[in-house]
Amino acid sequence: MSEKRKKLAIIVQGGTLDKLYCVLILGSTAVSMDMEVHLYFTFWGLNALVKGGMDKAGLPSDYKHMEEPMKEAIKRMKYPSPYEMLKRMKASGLLTIYACTPTMEMFGIKKESLIPEVDKLAGASTFLDVASDADITLFI
Amino acid sequence: MSEKRKKLAIIVQGGTLDKLYCVLILGSTAVSMDMEVHLYFTFWGLNALVKGGMDKAGLPSDYKHMEEPMKEAIKRMKYPSPYEMLKRMKASGLLTIYACTPTMEMFGIKKESLIPEVDKLAGASTFLDVASDADITLFI
Amino acid sequence: MSEKRKKLAIIVQGGTLDKLYCVLILGSTAVSMDMEVHLYFTFWGLNALVKGGMDKAGLPSDYKHMEEPMKEAIKRMKYPSPYEMLKRMKASGLLTIYACTPTMEMFGIKKESLIPEVDKLAGASTFLDVASDADITLFI
Repeated sequence: MSEKRKKLAIIVQGGTLDKLYCVLILGSTAVSMDMEVHLYFTFWGLNALVKGGMDKAGLPSDYKHMEEPMKEAIKRMKYPSPYEMLKRMKASGLLTIYACTPTMEMFGIKKESLIPEVDKLAGASTFLDVASDADITLFI
Repeated sequence: MSEKRKKLAIIVQGGTLDKLYCVLILGSTAVSMDMEVHLYFTFWGLNALVKGGMDKAGLPSDYKHMEEPMKEAIKRMKYPSPYEMLKRMKASGLLTIYACTPTMEMFGIKKESLIPEVDKLAGASTFLDVASDADITLFI
Repeated sequence: MSEKRKKLAIIVQGGTLDKLYCVLILGSTAVSMDMEVHLYFTFWGLNALVKGGMDKAGLPSDYKHMEEPMKEAIKRMKYPSPYEMLKRMKASGLLTIYACTPTMEMFGIKKESLIPEVDKLAGASTFLDVASDADITLFI
């Protein structure tokens, strides 16, 4: 009864590790609760969809001194890498990933350079359609 | 049948170009989909409502090196300037712009210094009223 | 008739004063409008729940030059300190405060170091449950 599933929609605008982990932890948890998850990557967030990009993300300069301790803690807590988390979420069949087409044009990012988990290249209207029907919508 | 229109409400707290473009592109797209758009400008976002302020916005220092390439790409893509986008949205009759009164008092910004497109000077309760009835609410 | 109360749910991810004031002003206003407020503190936001942490928050480095003028304006406007605002909100009986358990583990923050106003130590699923039923959900 897919039409009764709760729906989480996130605009992923930030590209730093603190923002990406929020997206990935919220998304993974939602999927484990049998919610549908829609992630629309735009601006700095789009770098996370470029092959090799997600696992290279770091912290913003105001928190740079926390990057090493945080990465060590993540290892100690046995969290998978960000890209690994995304792939597991994808395997649930509940995740749709959108890459923002105006951002791709703005930064000269080609379709071929994106990870294969991307479902759709889309503009803002696609996201607004999804979000206006979602139970939770966030801008991260 | 205005009562059936979908409604997008955004708190615009950020004042940098990457945040403003997100607001303007989401807002313009929503208006083109016949949605009602409510933008509540607060904190750094309020600078965008000061005359001449919106078109002076730049990128945060972590992304400063992207500012020139981004501005050139925007020109190449023939996007209108941020203020021009706001005015076109306004012409649709579907946009309401709020300036946050506590922010105005905090930073000593007078009503006369704001662009004429501002509809209301208002506090948080006005925004919460609008947002609790909206289909999509974002904090950008 | 608590079941008819409007509900505001916020993920507090940012730890800087500009973000915290947004949270506190929106939250206080919502409570004064008889709304239920749920604040889920995670990542940098969690520092605000450590004893003494909330009133030590400052501005991000891009806006550091505004910190003193802003603090003086806040004094002039007779705003209570951030922690005082939180305690007044709490006294309404309408506020629930969540501390993110994975963040506590990641940064080695113990339960004993948190302010007594915290209601629950919880993971993302608790927040998603609350948010999917809220009228307004924000990520700040």
